[in-house]
Amino acid sequence: MYHIISIRDLERRDIDYLLDRAREFDTGNYHPRVLEDKLAALLFFEPSTRTRMSFATAMARLGGRSISVDSVEASSIVKGETLADTIRVVSGYADAIVLRHPKEGAARLASEFATVPVINAGDGAGQHPSQTLLDLYTIRQSMPIEGLDVGLLGDLRYGRTAHSLALALSLYGVKLHTIAPGGLEMPANITLELRERGMEVIEHEDVEEVIRDLDVLYVTRIQRERFPDSGSYYNVASSYRITPDHLCGVRDHLMILHPLPRAGEIDPAVDQTPYARYFEQARNGVPVRMALLYEVMK
Amino acid sequence: MYHIISIRDLERRDIDYLLDRAREFDTGNYHPRVLEDKLAALLFFEPSTRTRMSFATAMARLGGRSISVDSVEASSIVKGETLADTIRVVSGYADAIVLRHPKEGAARLASEFATVPVINAGDGAGQHPSQTLLDLYTIRQSMPIEGLDVGLLGDLRYGRTAHSLALALSLYGVKLHTIAPGGLEMPANITLELRERGMEVIEHEDVEEVIRDLDVLYVTRIQRERFPDSGSYYNVASSYRITPDHLCGVRDHLMILHPLPRAGEIDPAVDQTPYARYFEQARNGVPVRMALLYEVMK
Amino acid sequence: MYHIISIRDLERRDIDYLLDRAREFDTGNYHPRVLEDKLAALLFFEPSTRTRMSFATAMARLGGRSISVDSVEASSIVKGETLADTIRVVSGYADAIVLRHPKEGAARLASEFATVPVINAGDGAGQHPSQTLLDLYTIRQSMPIEGLDVGLLGDLRYGRTAHSLALALSLYGVKLHTIAPGGLEMPANITLELRERGMEVIEHEDVEEVIRDLDVLYVTRIQRERFPDSGSYYNVASSYRITPDHLCGVRDHLMILHPLPRAGEIDPAVDQTPYARYFEQARNGVPVRMALLYEVMK
Repeated sequence: MYHIISIRDLERRDIDYLLDRAREFDTGNYHPRVLEDKLAALLFFEPSTRTRMSFATAMARLGGRSISVDSVEASSIVKGETLADTIRVVSGYADAIVLRHPKEGAARLASEFATVPVINAGDGAGQHPSQTLLDLYTIRQSMPIEGLDVGLLGDLRYGRTAHSLALALSLYGVKLHTIAPGGLEMPANITLELRERGMEVIEHEDVEEVIRDLDVLYVTRIQRERFPDSGSYYNVASSYRITPDHLCGVRDHLMILHPLPRAGEIDPAVDQTPYARYFEQARNGVPVRMALLYEVMK
Repeated sequence: MYHIISIRDLERRDIDYLLDRAREFDTGNYHPRVLEDKLAALLFFEPSTRTRMSFATAMARLGGRSISVDSVEASSIVKGETLADTIRVVSGYADAIVLRHPKEGAARLASEFATVPVINAGDGAGQHPSQTLLDLYTIRQSMPIEGLDVGLLGDLRYGRTAHSLALALSLYGVKLHTIAPGGLEMPANITLELRERGMEVIEHEDVEEVIRDLDVLYVTRIQRERFPDSGSYYNVASSYRITPDHLCGVRDHLMILHPLPRAGEIDPAVDQTPYARYFEQARNGVPVRMALLYEVMK
Repeated sequence: MYHIISIRDLERRDIDYLLDRAREFDTGNYHPRVLEDKLAALLFFEPSTRTRMSFATAMARLGGRSISVDSVEASSIVKGETLADTIRVVSGYADAIVLRHPKEGAARLASEFATVPVINAGDGAGQHPSQTLLDLYTIRQSMPIEGLDVGLLGDLRYGRTAHSLALALSLYGVKLHTIAPGGLEMPANITLELRERGMEVIEHEDVEEVIRDLDVLYVTRIQRERFPDSGSYYNVASSYRITPDHLCGVRDHLMILHPLPRAGEIDPAVDQTPYARYFEQARNGVPVRMALLYEVMK
């Protein structure tokens, strides 16, 4: 039995293996009811409808079933018992547990009490490994990841999505360009870790100075609550908003990605350009989660 | 690919075709797992438990799966992104989208962004075509619709169910009797449109003066919030309440229908009479929705 | 068609039959998709996530489908119509109804209007027969129930779980030891009924005086809201808390059970001992509910 808790637990060959499996599921190269008699418990202790739907879709596409606990129900569980007890009870029902929880470390704790595999679907400021895998998968579907110039734009301080992706990309010899407003830069300890892993990390303040050199631009959300007042938020948000004007002179194969939902970070006019790949990226959550669910339950 | 957005989009032959298909599903004349590998996303941005259960039942009866988003979860989606983005993401998961939304026009908008078929399960004051189809189906299961005398009773001003049904009945040479309290009459523009379509529309204030001439009496809800005070509400509600006393001398085959839930519009004592057909009508939502789901996903 | 409303409706041979069936499902001795084309409606008018998950799991393990209505959605149903109407509508969708409701007697009422079988999943201070059956099943998996010394510990005044279990155990010649704080003793009418059924009932105030003579210790929750202030609650709660210290000198085969969730009634240090059987008990909810669902829908 194995758990999927953090992208840090996976070596490059594990990641490549999972992405290869995802590709097989994506191209329909599998028995359509391969998990027919399997049941996944989707325990969502905070709302994350897209992630929940994506896992439920992945189970259904494999012929399996899901039992779902949404955040409203989960709040009554939280009042009634410890996470350890909940996990032990649910281990008696399902063949795997997909856990979303507001507290960092919850998934690791759950894996210690579970008698079935646990997949972390996001635990607070912690990890959300299936998001990172689908990000990698989306890039790899277009071009080999090795040696690419990848830009990370937005709130790189609090954005766990960006941290996990950067760590994973460091396994692929990628050159990383960080583009963040003052105060929301990538934390120094993460940048240090990336460099120790041999990654070239170049810091920028302005997307204009680097966008023409990128193969991938990964945009993340800038949240209103990180700023002292709405004036300073709107200032930053508007200068970190990607519009068609930015796309003049970029590489033909530039991919713009975003974990979604987006607020105003990408102008909808960008959707019509060939660079916009974020809806395809969202769709890729399904084969990647099929691969994870299959691997832990097969 | 086709969408089911409004009963206005359907010609009489489309409606007859769907009702014929519903009948086949109703009589068990189909392969029980004909949608086995299909997945419907039931996106309910406002509570409508019966409609959601009915669509989920229909998918299950066809061997398909559903992923559900209820109104509480949906409210977190609404905060996070535009309907257009949600629809594009969900298009990447499911084979069809069933949408319930509080805003008129939402289903039409969704159909413009979706890459899979959209079925409108009610959009505000707009349309709810599967309700109209199941109303027609229930009548047609008992007798040919052509030339019937059909009474519409209750709030005909705001009741979209009554408007859609009246429009659909105008395709079948029905004589329409409207029976509404002062202030809640059928809007003049709808009555005009019905007459332009060649329908005979006769207005009544009192159900007693017409009930003996009807083949179908379609009762709709009178909502408390339409009245300035509870006194005037109870006055109207009590004089528009169907009781066994009304049923003396009616035609043997009179069908009393109601889209449910009912508040006090029909006395429970009527349930025991052969005229009460509203629970059968609710049940008919399943084969009718099976027909819709099958047609858009087959 | 038959309903499962109260453990009082079941004779000993019915219970034994259901437990035998549960054992077959537990050991995998059944066709995995025996309810493949069946649909259960799980109507939960109050939150009870574990019970709902357990029934959903049971349906999935039998190859069947569930449509779920959780307590938030259910509250909009409650506003809109009577329980009788809801049950008649849902009878038109599903092949069985599993009902959880805050009002005692709701399940019996539902069974009078349903045209499909109703399983009571708890109705207020009333009955919750599948809990009692899984309690019996858990005991019987370890040893014959006949003649055992069974202790019931905790709030025996309001705890419906304890009442139902005691009634069922009276069919098996069990000697019952009640251990309750002052004011929360088993109601006199229930003790009287048990004695009239021939059961030996011995009342204790202190678990220490009896735990060494027990084969089964069934611990139930002591709820904060039964006490006038938190001081008196903590006093009682702490003297009715099972810790490893209590387990010195107990019978080797002592089973400690608890319907879960537990608050502080059982020290987590007890979990590591061989006496702790409450997680296994929770897991047994699945085969027992499979047996119930199968029997009413087969």
